[in-house]
Amino acid sequence: MASTQFDVLAIGNAIVDVLARTDDAFLVQHKMHKGTMRLIDEVQAAKLYDAMGPAVEISGGSAANTVVGVASLGARAGFIGKVKDDDLGRVFAHDIRAAGVSFATPPASAGPSTARCYVLVTPDGERTMNTYLGAAQDLHPNDIDADAVAAAQIIYLEGYLWDPPRAKEAFLKAAKIAHAAERDVALTLSDAFCVDRYRAEFLDLIRSRTVDLVFANERELRSLYETADFDSALDGLRNDARLAVVTRSEKGCLIVTREQTEAVPASPVERVVDATGAGDLFAAGFLAGLSRGSDYRTAGRLGALVAAEVIQHLGARPETSLKALGQENGFDL
Amino acid sequence: MASTQFDVLAIGNAIVDVLARTDDAFLVQHKMHKGTMRLIDEVQAAKLYDAMGPAVEISGGSAANTVVGVASLGARAGFIGKVKDDDLGRVFAHDIRAAGVSFATPPASAGPSTARCYVLVTPDGERTMNTYLGAAQDLHPNDIDADAVAAAQIIYLEGYLWDPPRAKEAFLKAAKIAHAAERDVALTLSDAFCVDRYRAEFLDLIRSRTVDLVFANERELRSLYETADFDSALDGLRNDARLAVVTRSEKGCLIVTREQTEAVPASPVERVVDATGAGDLFAAGFLAGLSRGSDYRTAGRLGALVAAEVIQHLGARPETSLKALGQENGFDL
Repeated sequence: MASTQFDVLAIGNAIVDVLARTDDAFLVQHKMHKGTMRLIDEVQAAKLYDAMGPAVEISGGSAANTVVGVASLGARAGFIGKVKDDDLGRVFAHDIRAAGVSFATPPASAGPSTARCYVLVTPDGERTMNTYLGAAQDLHPNDIDADAVAAAQIIYLEGYLWDPPRAKEAFLKAAKIAHAAERDVALTLSDAFCVDRYRAEFLDLIRSRTVDLVFANERELRSLYETADFDSALDGLRNDARLAVVTRSEKGCLIVTREQTEAVPASPVERVVDATGAGDLFAAGFLAGLSRGSDYRTAGRLGALVAAEVIQHLGARPETSLKALGQENGFDL
Repeated sequence: MASTQFDVLAIGNAIVDVLARTDDAFLVQHKMHKGTMRLIDEVQAAKLYDAMGPAVEISGGSAANTVVGVASLGARAGFIGKVKDDDLGRVFAHDIRAAGVSFATPPASAGPSTARCYVLVTPDGERTMNTYLGAAQDLHPNDIDADAVAAAQIIYLEGYLWDPPRAKEAFLKAAKIAHAAERDVALTLSDAFCVDRYRAEFLDLIRSRTVDLVFANERELRSLYETADFDSALDGLRNDARLAVVTRSEKGCLIVTREQTEAVPASPVERVVDATGAGDLFAAGFLAGLSRGSDYRTAGRLGALVAAEVIQHLGARPETSLKALGQENGFDL
């Protein structure tokens, strides 16, 4: 294999999070499913913003959060995603570059504004997401830099990319280039309702080995196999995937291959302030671990450690050097 | 006196804060005076943004923070200030209205973008501010709603209004209307370097009783009287002002009239996370107290309580209901 430019290159929706604290009654009133993501259009976005309380803007996007975590762990990270050339697009680009991630996708000069996700955080720390995709809708296969993809050890893709119309083509193009260059392709299932929208396609990606590594949480996994029974869903995944990691919040994670299922405990957390980014940062730790040649268990422990950091404050980006945090906890970074 | 529409109506620069953690070396490298505010132009703003780390956007502006605090304490609050009709302008308008503050100043449709303040927070919790005034430059006397001013029990003005060219006219117009309606006018000196720029004018405002109540911290007070000696600066203020409050961080505050100087202790704080907004929120508590007819000491204690809330998290806007916080601490709100 040729030498690599990136340890992890992610492709995802480029989104700025608009975070506000709220109560459960607000979620009920606005017919939201707590803990999940729903897509909203521009009119719904304006209405929701009018109704919600004072907010804070923090760069987000699931795969983008993951590569920021990867970079913070000291690995080489890149991101491909679409913003518009507006205030929030500049915020997104600044924050991801300032975090040490290479980001070269040209912004859109016309069309809808930069994507935003209205994240409502309830007192229990759970987050409920409402995404206006905006400019992220316009991610196009032409935005995939083939040289960058071929020079990345792991390509990381989010299931949310199935929502924008041309992004799935971009996704498939990237996966094809990666495999031609003998790289690994990882996918996160993103959200239980996202799985519901694209179940057959996601299963096909996994079974056809278009993806080598799958990240899922319990709800996403049960949605994928349309069963309430966790164990039978896990059996399905074990049978279908080359390698999978199932995250289970405070119960830790399971690392699943056909031969073996390994349980890794969660890292202790004093208080969950905002669960936004838990899965994203778990993936960051796991991928950074793999890219350094760690065994699965060590990679899983690193994922658990950095997921614990991000849920103890508002927002889905780390507030401290994850490399230093990892080193303090005995990881070789 | 006619009945009032507002307990406190503030006029100030409408600013979105861009907050990033940094270290002392960065401040030195960029020639900043720690703990103070400096004005920067568009080119400097772009350079600084490129150099600084990942950030978080939170609505700010000194007087705006104060009225958000006033509203959170359950009092009726309004704000006059200029944004542009852009992403950050919409963020500012949303956040202040969602906090319960009446804000009706029309946004600029052309000209410079909404003002932003690059706030660099060092590990000691101190904040160093770099303000690009942008659209706030264009606050004009015509933006002063005379009916709203005449219907406010207290008008609150920030010294920073001396920076934009026409804002000081707006300030003086508002003060005149307020006094004609037998209302009180309060002024914060804002920043030691701001006092340095407009010392003679600020002294004239105080001595001519254009302002009835002055807020200052120790550095601003020493700058006003050009002395390193705190006591002689305090003597100057006692002689010049009708009523003044001098905030002294962890030493609490002094409430000063010609007849009496009363010391009020600071509220206990576990850890200073970000000092941004300490003075703004102190003023909120003091003004809300006065507007309810509290004595000066009680108003000072309420100011100390809400200032302690805001410095224990990132950003200058309260993260909890200050009314509930006040009630838990025995205040009649």
